[in-house]
Amino acid sequence: MIDRLAIVGVGLLGGSVAKAARAHAVAREIVGVGRDLGRLGPAVSDGALDRATTDVAEGVAGADLVVLGAPVLVNETLLAHVWGAAPAGAVVTDVGSTKRSIVGAADRLAAGRPEVQFVGSHPMAGSEQSGYGVARGDLFAGATVVVTPGDAGDARAVKGVSEFWAALGARVVTLDPDTHDRAVAAISHLPHVVAWALVDAVARFEPEALAIAARGFKDTTRIAAADPDMWREILLDNREAVRGSVAAFRRALDDLDALVAAGDAAALTAFLARMKTARERLA
Amino acid sequence: MIDRLAIVGVGLLGGSVAKAARAHAVAREIVGVGRDLGRLGPAVSDGALDRATTDVAEGVAGADLVVLGAPVLVNETLLAHVWGAAPAGAVVTDVGSTKRSIVGAADRLAAGRPEVQFVGSHPMAGSEQSGYGVARGDLFAGATVVVTPGDAGDARAVKGVSEFWAALGARVVTLDPDTHDRAVAAISHLPHVVAWALVDAVARFEPEALAIAARGFKDTTRIAAADPDMWREILLDNREAVRGSVAAFRRALDDLDALVAAGDAAALTAFLARMKTARERLA
Repeated sequence: MIDRLAIVGVGLLGGSVAKAARAHAVAREIVGVGRDLGRLGPAVSDGALDRATTDVAEGVAGADLVVLGAPVLVNETLLAHVWGAAPAGAVVTDVGSTKRSIVGAADRLAAGRPEVQFVGSHPMAGSEQSGYGVARGDLFAGATVVVTPGDAGDARAVKGVSEFWAALGARVVTLDPDTHDRAVAAISHLPHVVAWALVDAVARFEPEALAIAARGFKDTTRIAAADPDMWREILLDNREAVRGSVAAFRRALDDLDALVAAGDAAALTAFLARMKTARERLA
Repeated sequence: MIDRLAIVGVGLLGGSVAKAARAHAVAREIVGVGRDLGRLGPAVSDGALDRATTDVAEGVAGADLVVLGAPVLVNETLLAHVWGAAPAGAVVTDVGSTKRSIVGAADRLAAGRPEVQFVGSHPMAGSEQSGYGVARGDLFAGATVVVTPGDAGDARAVKGVSEFWAALGARVVTLDPDTHDRAVAAISHLPHVVAWALVDAVARFEPEALAIAARGFKDTTRIAAADPDMWREILLDNREAVRGSVAAFRRALDDLDALVAAGDAAALTAFLARMKTARERLA
């Protein structure tokens, strides 16, 4: 049981953490921190938060667990403020979708004040929408949350953060921050990059095509409508892994294009059958 | 009203044509032609077909409209047999997903026997499954069917084929065969190529990624589980347009990768916003 849970940034993810923590009774008190008290009002009036403040130091004072729920680059800026204001023994986590840079920043802060601990978290849940209005208490039920300890994170903190997510209904997977960033580049950031390039390519290649677009094309490109500001941050923050995954994709595309160019029916069938098997393994 | 409708190849699409034509009472008699009488049995016993035969000439004798429902390359072989056996005044169409080569073949046959007409059709409907067992009478209801006249197709034949699909509930769009093949390369074949390359790239780049694959990745790659034999034929039959669309895609991908590499936040946001608008236009 957590005595005081502080959530800095009460949008879709931070708000869902508040609602889920309330629903599962994992914290005695839940404090919300935001830039605009008016926007925190609904979370207080519906009971997800016990109180709200715009002051980071006031919000995290006395907290056992602090969850950073702002966009990736904002969380990195907030981290130093939180680190200075959180009590000794506090554990800090976040819900951002890239981990190497924030875990690195936390490792540097821990060198100065080791009595605060950081363990990164990435809930593989969310939607194309944002804001507290779409937050849901069951957002993490059955979802995968990747927990990423840094060099300075101790076992107690890792266990505490993992148990927190498990208490909200999530399946917890632990990865080091580098592997995490490569993995999400591959299965989340790369598919977005591909979807944007696909929409762009079709308009360039054959404008008539969009008039007859069927379900398959719409499914494949649905994620191209994701929020530009959020995705600019993700792509730039995880630039190295994103570009690595794009390079791997380009090689795979070139190999397949070469099979089509060569007209090698047997090799092409074998390749397509191999990909069908790989995809079906994901269910 | 069609007096005799002959369907050569009674699988998912051919079978759905039979069921839909029966349901909408657009033909007095429906004859099915296949390689195996046993596999045509269910379509006769459930009333979709009035009779079935393994003999192409017998099946198309006296037909007003012949629908070729076999795989793309088989249809091209069948076309010559059908052309010789169909009565004067008969109109032939198909349900294949590439059009330039079969329309070209029909134009050559029409030079020898102009009293038979061909108009290509491509119903933008179907599924990853195949066979008469998954045929449905409502498969074309609300679906787009692209009708592709060749040089030798007369206006009466184009009108007849368009009215046939409209009677089955489809929205009919007319395109010349070249534009059709480029359009389907862009919105159907290219997304498949991309989905296969994506599955391959992820396994190459970061095998840990597949363990945390979320909904977005599964949506984007669902079509990678499509039938290898059918897709080998499509990719090879439409090789030129497929490779053209892959080249356009590669240029779009390179442009986006360059924006990420340059770290140009403003240009990146503008690009993502433009793609979001383009995708949202598809609904």
